[in-house]
Amino acid sequence: MQYTIKLHIKNTEKTITAEEGDDLFRLLQNSGIAMNTPCAGKGTCGKCVVRVEGDLKAPSDREKSLIGGGMLEKGYRLACYTRVSSDLDVYPEGDIREASIITAGKMRSIPLEPAVQKRFIELELPSLEDQRPDLERVLEALSSDTVTGADETGKVPSNIPDIVEDISRSTMPCSLDMIKELPGILKASGYKITAVLVNGGLAAVEPGDTSDRIYGMAVDIGTTTVAAYLYDLASGKRVSTGSMLNPQRKYGADVISRIDHTIRTENGRAELRSLITECIGGLATEMADRVGINKADIYTAVFAGNTTMQHLLLGLDAAGIATAPFIPVTTRPVWLSSKELGLSFNRYGTAAVFPGVSAYIGGDIVASILSSGIYEADDISLLVDIGTNGEIVLGGREWLLACSTAAGPAFEGANIKNGMGGVAGAIDSVSHAPDFIYSVIGNTKPAGICGSGIVDAIAAMLDAELLDETGRIPDADEAAAAGEISQRLVSLDGSRAFVICGGPEPIIITQRDVREIQNAKAAIAAGIETLIREAGISPDDIRKVYLAGGFGSSLHIDTAVRIGLLPKTLENRIEAIGNASGAGAAEGLLSAASLRIAENLSRKVRYIELSASAYFTEKYVENMLF
Amino acid sequence: MQYTIKLHIKNTEKTITAEEGDDLFRLLQNSGIAMNTPCAGKGTCGKCVVRVEGDLKAPSDREKSLIGGGMLEKGYRLACYTRVSSDLDVYPEGDIREASIITAGKMRSIPLEPAVQKRFIELELPSLEDQRPDLERVLEALSSDTVTGADETGKVPSNIPDIVEDISRSTMPCSLDMIKELPGILKASGYKITAVLVNGGLAAVEPGDTSDRIYGMAVDIGTTTVAAYLYDLASGKRVSTGSMLNPQRKYGADVISRIDHTIRTENGRAELRSLITECIGGLATEMADRVGINKADIYTAVFAGNTTMQHLLLGLDAAGIATAPFIPVTTRPVWLSSKELGLSFNRYGTAAVFPGVSAYIGGDIVASILSSGIYEADDISLLVDIGTNGEIVLGGREWLLACSTAAGPAFEGANIKNGMGGVAGAIDSVSHAPDFIYSVIGNTKPAGICGSGIVDAIAAMLDAELLDETGRIPDADEAAAAGEISQRLVSLDGSRAFVICGGPEPIIITQRDVREIQNAKAAIAAGIETLIREAGISPDDIRKVYLAGGFGSSLHIDTAVRIGLLPKTLENRIEAIGNASGAGAAEGLLSAASLRIAENLSRKVRYIELSASAYFTEKYVENMLF
Repeated sequence: MQYTIKLHIKNTEKTITAEEGDDLFRLLQNSGIAMNTPCAGKGTCGKCVVRVEGDLKAPSDREKSLIGGGMLEKGYRLACYTRVSSDLDVYPEGDIREASIITAGKMRSIPLEPAVQKRFIELELPSLEDQRPDLERVLEALSSDTVTGADETGKVPSNIPDIVEDISRSTMPCSLDMIKELPGILKASGYKITAVLVNGGLAAVEPGDTSDRIYGMAVDIGTTTVAAYLYDLASGKRVSTGSMLNPQRKYGADVISRIDHTIRTENGRAELRSLITECIGGLATEMADRVGINKADIYTAVFAGNTTMQHLLLGLDAAGIATAPFIPVTTRPVWLSSKELGLSFNRYGTAAVFPGVSAYIGGDIVASILSSGIYEADDISLLVDIGTNGEIVLGGREWLLACSTAAGPAFEGANIKNGMGGVAGAIDSVSHAPDFIYSVIGNTKPAGICGSGIVDAIAAMLDAELLDETGRIPDADEAAAAGEISQRLVSLDGSRAFVICGGPEPIIITQRDVREIQNAKAAIAAGIETLIREAGISPDDIRKVYLAGGFGSSLHIDTAVRIGLLPKTLENRIEAIGNASGAGAAEGLLSAASLRIAENLSRKVRYIELSASAYFTEKYVENMLF
Repeated sequence: MQYTIKLHIKNTEKTITAEEGDDLFRLLQNSGIAMNTPCAGKGTCGKCVVRVEGDLKAPSDREKSLIGGGMLEKGYRLACYTRVSSDLDVYPEGDIREASIITAGKMRSIPLEPAVQKRFIELELPSLEDQRPDLERVLEALSSDTVTGADETGKVPSNIPDIVEDISRSTMPCSLDMIKELPGILKASGYKITAVLVNGGLAAVEPGDTSDRIYGMAVDIGTTTVAAYLYDLASGKRVSTGSMLNPQRKYGADVISRIDHTIRTENGRAELRSLITECIGGLATEMADRVGINKADIYTAVFAGNTTMQHLLLGLDAAGIATAPFIPVTTRPVWLSSKELGLSFNRYGTAAVFPGVSAYIGGDIVASILSSGIYEADDISLLVDIGTNGEIVLGGREWLLACSTAAGPAFEGANIKNGMGGVAGAIDSVSHAPDFIYSVIGNTKPAGICGSGIVDAIAAMLDAELLDETGRIPDADEAAAAGEISQRLVSLDGSRAFVICGGPEPIIITQRDVREIQNAKAAIAAGIETLIREAGISPDDIRKVYLAGGFGSSLHIDTAVRIGLLPKTLENRIEAIGNASGAGAAEGLLSAASLRIAENLSRKVRYIELSASAYFTEKYVENMLF
């Protein structure tokens, strides 16, 4: 039996055909409707809310417990529990919003010296007295000091990597495809050519002077959001930015769900790879169109992401990351052709993937260490990136330690009753003194609450004694002493909750939400303490604390300290540095030297495995208290 | 109008359909019948003799002049002049024989240290205390001194290239394809693997111990003949050899005709590339079958050929080689995957192409310099390779000079009335004192005469005063004084000729043949003198003369000196070393160090362009005399 399903998204309508018993979650997914669902349809997160008109079987007890009171009556259901048994009109209500542009991280001032460069050269013409092979003619002109063009016009950066000088000694510094075309290009251009150099090797030769057309892309591949930055590599200027939700989200909010998908599904690895490369290709097209350049003018891309994201981008088997002893395939930097990645850049385009440290300290953290500059400071700094995992780096010029805590995605709004990302509609700050007020991103009607709002709300509850140090929300009698604000406590499904805003669709913090945050903040705090102990220093030796990532930027430092996420003693030394990973990727794009530093950093960082640390476990339990 | 053409080859018959006016030469070619025709159907060499039954138009004067007396009457025609205008029975008579196996050159004793090696390793198992990434685990085991397996079993060579020690410092010493498979192989094999190393980089990983299965192929790509040698790289033993006529011959006997084909024909370059790679693939299959191994056990091939052959193998544009100022695309050594060459070896197989010096001093000569060892001798040596071109190298440990003379293919039997290669049926020696005798390869009825036979015959004519020092064959009166042997002189088509064997299909040396040989020997002799002068030495400083190649091996040194091909003063220092190019390719296969030496040699050899040398022209004219 076939049924007609009408999907209503915003103001558009889409009709699909379904079989009796089809899973509505998969139908939506197959129709390209990606909902932000942490569990990826496994029936545990309760996020795939849809309003349904049409006949459906009665909800199971499990569905009832997830969807909350009153919703079912209004026609709301969870797509993952819904099986088609009639024609339906479906109105998805979950998080299918666009992500907002991620602020780029703080960029350092570095010399423009990209690994990919162009150089215009006018070659001497061949003769019986000068019978050098075509390739030798080009390579020797490139290694000579008296190159015509480039340096004089000032169009291309003058810091050609040292390696160019080695070209004439290297065996074959270019691809066979390229040298197949070489004689034709030389003849057609009258021996006036532009060389495209990658790490000092000759990647391509173009007829005439094209040295002013060379663009590159830096990409931060987050588990949730992909942020891209387009640079003019001739001038070093950023010319466009773009960002998208990571389309792999449809297979889960966290890395483990996505790795699971690659293990469980035959083509899962290829599928996740396509999703991310199409996303990157889309961002490249979008930015190129905006700036009015051709995608063929993009010669390179530099990627930074966590180890799983980088494995999925490269099509590597990530299974070893998901289970103990947590073994990645490789954490080395990888150079490959953009063609190999499925990106329609210049056909001789290349791509570089940042080096990482371990399964849970990836290229994104190495990029963040790079752009934060902590590795060259005499003082000891702490770098904290709180996302789905919480990655922590401690150290300076002499040594660097890192660990990763399975903080869970609570601070990104996942596994939180009314949680959502830091996008339009999210409550992002809450304060209670003198009055109880909250703010909403985009000044719209609140649709949920994001990480910074949750931290604020919990701090407010603690201040108002609507939460004890064990994280228990008091019952009505106990709370009465807190005064007017205590009226915001309600009982819901047999459990206590704190109402931030009321109405028919209230935004609340549940007892369960508090437990999620307790777990997450305990993990971060215990991770910091473990690194400090491992380093044999005292917290006061830390001169600077950098908060990387979107959550770090929106976080209010006072409330983060209040709930014990960050150490009180360091409160005045904390600075948010935005998308440090993106900034590091951009730095790697603009400077081959920075990429080499990143490679050294990836070997220098000592990784501390917390799952093997008794000290961490002890501190984790301690830090559960507020 | 369509006609039926029956092709009779040996004892087989093949029927094809042709249109009115079709060119019989092309019809034969398209039917896979490759005749050994120097001009490739351009109507100048007179080699594509066929006997034809059926109606044909009368022969043109040009065809008459090429095919010689009495042949036309017997039904013989030249295929390239023949246009189809009726049903025909065609009996090809030209050289469609198989080549005989080319003798391998003299191999030096070198340490077994191939660029491609295997190493069996048992890896430590990963744990929370040892979280090294899969790739790092493999690479570190390879660079450590305590490798299990390989060295102990003695199955693989112990001289792992130094570069292996650099592995752990290199960025990414292996392909993405390989690391995609790595985790699966590690798990399946219980972390007991065999690494395939290429130049110290990790090319592949195989489960279990496969270190005794590793074969490689050395190939000498001659313009006329392709010779291949299969080696067991674990033991360094040669296990099989094979050779075939170069199938590109159907587009001409010399390199210029083949380059012309790539210029004139749209897919010419691809076509010539396929012809040679299919030939190599066929030789590999043949040898692998003979030894009873799988082609997937062949991990590498090393190629040496002249610059044109190497360009055609790599699919490079060879047009620059054909005309002044004679510019190749590259003469650097090239490493590529065997897959890229279209060879179905091991799927991670590689191939190396020898470095060359210039358009006319190719990888074959560098390989010959290598295997002859002249580059490390304190004394000065002369190396002469006489083929379609005559390549000459002079020097020793301190310096090396090289030149190439357009000697023409006369010594290979081309452009000689009854000339043929040194294969069964060829007269290969002629002597006249005390009696006039000749020998035939394979002791069969003579079908023609090869280079060594021609040189002998001309020497005999000189000794008997049947040829003056200008190369003129005397008329009957003048020759009478020579006695009985003078009866071998006849007049043919208004010109004088020397009859080696009579009968209905006589083998003769014509006045034109003598001129061809005069040109060729003058070019070689003048080339030698030019190098000697360029080096500022006297002929007596040369301690050793090496004759490389098939012709060099069959040549009789006394007659070669008699006709002035080689200097009289060096007569006692001349040694034939066989297929020195093939021996050099084999050495490169067995020793990475030898390949590195070859690379240095290719840069060390100074090329002397004879077409720009007035001294060469002067000596060439002088050496025209006998």
